[in-house]
Amino acid sequence: MRIVEVREVSVPLEGTVANAVVSFAEHTVSLVALITDRKQRGKPVTGIAFNSIGRFGQSGILRERMIPRLLAADPDSLLAADAISLDPARVLATVMRNEKPGGHGDRAGAAAAIELAVWDLNAKLADEPAHAHIARAFGQPQTPRPVPVYAAGGYYYPDDSVERLRDELDGYRALGFEAFKIKIGGALLDEDLRRIDAALTVAGDGARLAVDANGRFDLEQALAYGQALAPLGLRWYEEPGDPLDFELNRALCVDYDGAVATGENLFSAADARNLVRYAGLRAHRDVLQMDPGLSYGLTEYGRMLAHLEAAGFHRSRCFPHGGHLINLHVVAGLSLGGCEAYPGVFQPFGGYSPRCTVEAGMVTPGDEPGFGLEWKEELRPHLDGLLQGATRGRVRS
Amino acid sequence: MRIVEVREVSVPLEGTVANAVVSFAEHTVSLVALITDRKQRGKPVTGIAFNSIGRFGQSGILRERMIPRLLAADPDSLLAADAISLDPARVLATVMRNEKPGGHGDRAGAAAAIELAVWDLNAKLADEPAHAHIARAFGQPQTPRPVPVYAAGGYYYPDDSVERLRDELDGYRALGFEAFKIKIGGALLDEDLRRIDAALTVAGDGARLAVDANGRFDLEQALAYGQALAPLGLRWYEEPGDPLDFELNRALCVDYDGAVATGENLFSAADARNLVRYAGLRAHRDVLQMDPGLSYGLTEYGRMLAHLEAAGFHRSRCFPHGGHLINLHVVAGLSLGGCEAYPGVFQPFGGYSPRCTVEAGMVTPGDEPGFGLEWKEELRPHLDGLLQGATRGRVRS
Repeated sequence: MRIVEVREVSVPLEGTVANAVVSFAEHTVSLVALITDRKQRGKPVTGIAFNSIGRFGQSGILRERMIPRLLAADPDSLLAADAISLDPARVLATVMRNEKPGGHGDRAGAAAAIELAVWDLNAKLADEPAHAHIARAFGQPQTPRPVPVYAAGGYYYPDDSVERLRDELDGYRALGFEAFKIKIGGALLDEDLRRIDAALTVAGDGARLAVDANGRFDLEQALAYGQALAPLGLRWYEEPGDPLDFELNRALCVDYDGAVATGENLFSAADARNLVRYAGLRAHRDVLQMDPGLSYGLTEYGRMLAHLEAAGFHRSRCFPHGGHLINLHVVAGLSLGGCEAYPGVFQPFGGYSPRCTVEAGMVTPGDEPGFGLEWKEELRPHLDGLLQGATRGRVRS
Repeated sequence: MRIVEVREVSVPLEGTVANAVVSFAEHTVSLVALITDRKQRGKPVTGIAFNSIGRFGQSGILRERMIPRLLAADPDSLLAADAISLDPARVLATVMRNEKPGGHGDRAGAAAAIELAVWDLNAKLADEPAHAHIARAFGQPQTPRPVPVYAAGGYYYPDDSVERLRDELDGYRALGFEAFKIKIGGALLDEDLRRIDAALTVAGDGARLAVDANGRFDLEQALAYGQALAPLGLRWYEEPGDPLDFELNRALCVDYDGAVATGENLFSAADARNLVRYAGLRAHRDVLQMDPGLSYGLTEYGRMLAHLEAAGFHRSRCFPHGGHLINLHVVAGLSLGGCEAYPGVFQPFGGYSPRCTVEAGMVTPGDEPGFGLEWKEELRPHLDGLLQGATRGRVRS
């Protein structure tokens, strides 16, 4: 079994939303296909994945560094012990050859797209959904089960109002969601509190509403928001300060009794270990949001989990950033706490497929082989373009 | 004054050397030119820089994200208060628009190449060498002065021997260098000690010889090397463990009395602040090696220096990674401790130009305007290609 061709394309996100820090109008995502010499139903078995959402496509790093290394490798050196599937850790080590330690940024997303495509490929070779394949690989229970999900949204829009926000969350409730997350920090505290009040009228109580500052606050602002939020009993208060300012997070955790969530902008096991060591997180209260699609894929995510569990955190405290099919299978397969969905935004990658049901705040992955990306309607034209060769983003072996 | 065109090209490093972790055979560097509508001597004033050495060219990030943002900006929004030069901080903020916090990796090098080209441009507009321009901008003494320099080399080669290593360092001594650095960790401890012994016969004593493990060791190895190195009184013991494993570094600093050097693989002020907070570094003994060319440029390097000085470190403890003309001017302009040179390797970027004299362990920058990259013979053909339009790496405004 060998990879005969690797294709990639950068796909722009649709729509224009903004959080406290960035606009997503110019964001792209790398969609990657690993085409093999194995066939199923007359077509080459192909592993598909993308580098989550929010950190740009990585065509340059994929084409200049990682895809050439992968295609230059001895195909046998990439095989798993069963000799019929690929070893994700070997593929990762291959695409990371001659990369120095540290500096875990854009390349972590490029590597992740390839590594996650290996999981899709392996699940298809085994003719099973990715969550079942992941569960077996990581020694987790394989019972398919609904996964807790919350609807993430509440971005700032050019003509925004609390009515628009309430309507947005009402729409998510009508889709079957019962927990929600909205942005804070893009407005002044008073206006954000009005937004939160409006959101609570839909959520019902604070335990069903999280807020996300996207790393915007300095210590003083983080503490001020914490004091204002504390009486509301919110589900969590996400990324108050710079993701690397562990001292700010530690000080907030001393001052704020509610749950704090962070980690989505840490892209390596070494960074996650520092978070656990220094950020004052409370193992039975706080929430960890590292995202495999931004962080070298599942191999590295497994290393992160090992650091967390060694420090007393249960994997049920993990809610990965990135509401999409890949992370749904990851959460289900690894028995994590739950996942997010962006039902309205970040198309064509955000949200799930018609094969997944959302009901009473739970989402159940479909049972099609792999991550089931082929069943997501918004993604289908991009996959067709990539796989039919109509796209410029091709690198032949 | 406005930028009319930005060009970039990825230039491969020549030769094949390896440290304990990576081979440089496939490494590239991004060479960037900011072409303006100002003329001197009949030619457009053009700022030139590159993203240091060792972390790959960044064509993808430059072309897809940063250059379009720069060319889309209102030219007036990029100007300094004098209205005749560019404001490096504004240029950096512009190329980083819509980039999320955290994840300081490849993009930090891409941004650095552009930001540093602004310093070259501004110095040329002021018709002065970059070190003088930098010194004024950062409120440092402007006396041109020789800068301490050491020769970095001692890599592992396919057919290596202690004789080859000794000959290599003898060659550096003949060029005027009196302090040296060699790699460790690519061989077993016994062999590395033999290499160090051979190097000491050239260096004279330990105070003139540093060793560099390139982040290879786990805690046990780092401590074992530390115990073996301690009696030698070496200049410093560089990057013993993973650059983000601050706890390893802290434990080593408790155990090892000699100087420890680290920081070259930390690419942001937030990471450097964590290093100072957590890594147990001793303000009057240890050495900091953050490299502006890998770290968003001089604007961010100034923020790093502010964190260091707030923690009691003197800037004379800073020896930036990357032995080349840009860092020579940075070290001279900011009154840092000294700089490195790779006289034999990393061409066409490593080392200095004939306008710079190396004598008795000191190097004096030339007095040509800017960084003087145009005077470096090995770089000249690449600059000619870039500026004459013969290169594919062009993005027109």
